[in-house]
Amino acid sequence: MSKPIPDIVIGRLPIYLRALVQMAQEGRQVTSSQELGERLGISAAQIRKDLSQFGEFGKQGTGYRIEFLSKQLGEILKVDRVWDVAIVGAGDIGRALASYSGFSQRGFRIAMIFDSKPELVDKEAAGIVIRDSRKLKEDIAAAGIKIAMIAVPATQAQEVVNQLVEAGVRAILSYAPVHLSVPAGVRVQNIDPSIHLQRMTYYLD
Amino acid sequence: MSKPIPDIVIGRLPIYLRALVQMAQEGRQVTSSQELGERLGISAAQIRKDLSQFGEFGKQGTGYRIEFLSKQLGEILKVDRVWDVAIVGAGDIGRALASYSGFSQRGFRIAMIFDSKPELVDKEAAGIVIRDSRKLKEDIAAAGIKIAMIAVPATQAQEVVNQLVEAGVRAILSYAPVHLSVPAGVRVQNIDPSIHLQRMTYYLD
Repeated sequence: MSKPIPDIVIGRLPIYLRALVQMAQEGRQVTSSQELGERLGISAAQIRKDLSQFGEFGKQGTGYRIEFLSKQLGEILKVDRVWDVAIVGAGDIGRALASYSGFSQRGFRIAMIFDSKPELVDKEAAGIVIRDSRKLKEDIAAAGIKIAMIAVPATQAQEVVNQLVEAGVRAILSYAPVHLSVPAGVRVQNIDPSIHLQRMTYYLD
Repeated sequence: MSKPIPDIVIGRLPIYLRALVQMAQEGRQVTSSQELGERLGISAAQIRKDLSQFGEFGKQGTGYRIEFLSKQLGEILKVDRVWDVAIVGAGDIGRALASYSGFSQRGFRIAMIFDSKPELVDKEAAGIVIRDSRKLKEDIAAAGIKIAMIAVPATQAQEVVNQLVEAGVRAILSYAPVHLSVPAGVRVQNIDPSIHLQRMTYYLD
C-alpha cells in the first residue's frame, strides 16, 4: 500500500469533477490544467500535482480529455455508483435536502428520512414517507446505509450521530452548528452557513 | 501594515468562536488550547499558533478566559456587530435560510429576500416580503448591504453574482453547485452538499 493521499487533495477532487462535468455539458471535449485552474482559482501546478497522485491523466501539450478524466475521478471518489443516503430531521433544511434534485447525478439517492416529531412521522417530504427516529438505528442498519445527512437541533445532534454510527453509518454531513465526535473510521463534514459568513466578514470594512 | 494572515487561519477562527460560545453556554469560564483542540480535532499547537497571530490571549499555564477570548475573536471577525444579509432565491433552500434562527446570535440579520418568479414576489418567507429580483441591484445598493446568500439555479447564479457585485456586495455565500467568478475584493464561499459527500465516499468501502 502506498502512502495515503492527503485529505486536502481528496477535498479538491470533487471540485475538479464538478467543473469537468460542467465543461462536458457545455459541449467541450478537452481542457488543460491552466483552464481548469482559471475557472477554479487554483494554480495549474496544484491541479497537475493533485491529479498526478492518481496516475497519468493527460499528455504534456495535449491536455486532459474531459470525459475520460471525469470518469476516472468518479471512480476514484467512488461516485461511479449510487449511494443510498438517510436524512435525519425533516424540518426546513431536511426537507430542502430531500427535495434537492442535484444529488442523483452526483452519486447519491435519498433513501430514507427520519424525524422525532409525532406530527411529522408518516407524512411525506419530497415524496418520501418520514420515519420515526426511534426506528433510525434498526432501519438504517437493515438497509446497510453508510451515509447520512443530519439537520436536527444542535442539542440533539451528538445523540443522533451516536445512533448513526451504531447503525453502521461511516460518513455524516451535519447541518447542526456544533462540533461532533465520532470514532476512528467515521467521517464528519459540517455545513454551517454562519461559519462561512464569519470567514468573510473579517475582510469587510 | 504587517503581513496578511493566511485565509486558512481566518477560516479556523469561526470554528474556535463557535466552540467557545458553546463552552460559555455550558457555564464554563476557562479553557486551554489542549481542550479546544480535543473538541475540534485540531492540534493544541495549531490553535496556539493561530491565536498568537492576533495577540496574547492566554497566559502560560492558566489557559484562556472563555468570555474574553470570544469577545476578541468576535471583534477580529467583525461579528461584534450585526450585518444585514440579502437572500436571493426563495425556493426550498432560500426559505430554509430565511427561517434559520441561528444567524442572529452570530452577527447576521436577514434583511431582504428576492426571487424572480412572479408567483413568489410579494409573498412572505419567514415573515419577510419577497422582493422582485428585477429590483435586486437597486434595493441592495440603496440599503448598503455587503453580504448575500444565493440559492438560485446553477444556470442563473453567475448573472445574480454580477448584479450583486455591481450593487456593492462584497461577500457571497452560494448554494448554487457551480464555480462563480468575482472581481478582486469580493469573496465567495460555496456550500454544495454533493461536494462534501463526495469527499467522504472516497474513504468508504
